[in-house]
Amino acid sequence: VTHITAIDRDAATRTASLAAGTADHAVPTLADAPPAPDDLLVLATPVRTILDTLAHLPVVVPNGCLVLDLGSTKSDICRAMEALPPRFAAIGGHPMCGREVSGFEAGSAELYRDQTFVLTPNARTTASLREAALTLLHNIGAQPLVMVPAEHDQSVALVSHLPYTLAALLMQHAYRSVRGEDHIWRISASGFRDTARLAGSDPNMMRDIMLTNRRPLLTQLRHFRRGLDEFITFLEQADETALFDWLADRQGNHAYYRQHKENGAS
Amino acid sequence: VTHITAIDRDAATRTASLAAGTADHAVPTLADAPPAPDDLLVLATPVRTILDTLAHLPVVVPNGCLVLDLGSTKSDICRAMEALPPRFAAIGGHPMCGREVSGFEAGSAELYRDQTFVLTPNARTTASLREAALTLLHNIGAQPLVMVPAEHDQSVALVSHLPYTLAALLMQHAYRSVRGEDHIWRISASGFRDTARLAGSDPNMMRDIMLTNRRPLLTQLRHFRRGLDEFITFLEQADETALFDWLADRQGNHAYYRQHKENGAS
Repeated sequence: VTHITAIDRDAATRTASLAAGTADHAVPTLADAPPAPDDLLVLATPVRTILDTLAHLPVVVPNGCLVLDLGSTKSDICRAMEALPPRFAAIGGHPMCGREVSGFEAGSAELYRDQTFVLTPNARTTASLREAALTLLHNIGAQPLVMVPAEHDQSVALVSHLPYTLAALLMQHAYRSVRGEDHIWRISASGFRDTARLAGSDPNMMRDIMLTNRRPLLTQLRHFRRGLDEFITFLEQADETALFDWLADRQGNHAYYRQHKENGAS
Repeated sequence: VTHITAIDRDAATRTASLAAGTADHAVPTLADAPPAPDDLLVLATPVRTILDTLAHLPVVVPNGCLVLDLGSTKSDICRAMEALPPRFAAIGGHPMCGREVSGFEAGSAELYRDQTFVLTPNARTTASLREAALTLLHNIGAQPLVMVPAEHDQSVALVSHLPYTLAALLMQHAYRSVRGEDHIWRISASGFRDTARLAGSDPNMMRDIMLTNRRPLLTQLRHFRRGLDEFITFLEQADETALFDWLADRQGNHAYYRQHKENGAS
């Protein structure tokens, strides 16, 4: 029988967790219920809070334990894991099923099903912890994908942090442009809604992501800007045939992505 | 009793339309069943095909008729409507419920319900046609919004054509970056899916939109590029507090948009 202790500084979240039956006990801080050496500590906070927790772990949990994190970037976290004393075993994790809403109420037992769950083993990862992590992923229906931390971070800069930044910049630009003429929002349809959706993301989470994955994101943004520059010049020329070909190529890229996404795990 | 004639050059679409009961008759071209003076001709094709149809209308329909179009841009179309002889009455229309898929099969009787439907009256719009258009919108459950063509076109450049272009550029950039390492698509989640969704749009429709709304879209793209440039400089500085404020402002903009969108008609 698995015993689950919820650790959350917010009393309402602790109460909600107990009421929902997702935890057997709930405490405000890790120090209130330090894990035993065979316990699995799951760190599910913004990235820099995970880094802070890992830094204090040797003092708060003197006998060591097993650690899995769910942070959105992995290089800094895995480096911090590797700095833990050998009585700890630790593995990086990142479930690819974020939502633009957060908090206990946004969770669901089905959240991970059929979704890709990246694992980033590192120098502090034992064979048995790796197996335990794979079993956990199997139990929640997630599809494991093992990656090197740096490759993970470059990839999410492309498929997650760049889309977020574009959504946020679109939202900023639209808000500034519309201001005072709110009937214009009525003209916006599902296209705007979906393209701008990520702008609603939690700023605490996004700040930590951007600060710990700044260089890969800046690289993506500079590449994107180059593509935008090229397209502006291209549209200025208004070559009808070339424009159709460009648009058809994008539709083709989208079909290719959908096909490979669906053939993949999630 | 309303009699509906479907006009589509594609035989399969004509057959599907008759089988679904959405039309009483189906013909390949307008010349096969020219409307009577009191008939309402609804033009639902890419924008430049609408312009072409309007140009030929005085010859194909010598006795005149009522005209409503559903094109995505309105300035060029309303100018073409105003060039019709006075035996025609015409009004511009644009239902804000596009999908990234197209064709007869993508349609639905509920497509317009509670959605904003822009009407752009012009010099060729009679009071009785305006009333008839409002009755039609009422019957399909759409929410009318009357606009001047140029204001419509500037607004959709912002809330529709800019988001499309960003989605297409994101798709292009991601496709080029991922090529050959297709496991990276597995890491992409709902954030990428939604931000890139519009890239799947029909290239015929998008070409006509971009060619007939090129200047407003270029204006939006240049403004967006300025915002992107500013953000790159901002992120290079990595000011933690300023970054949090920026991200929180974007979340606030998004909440503002959601609120005003929901308070509006659709």
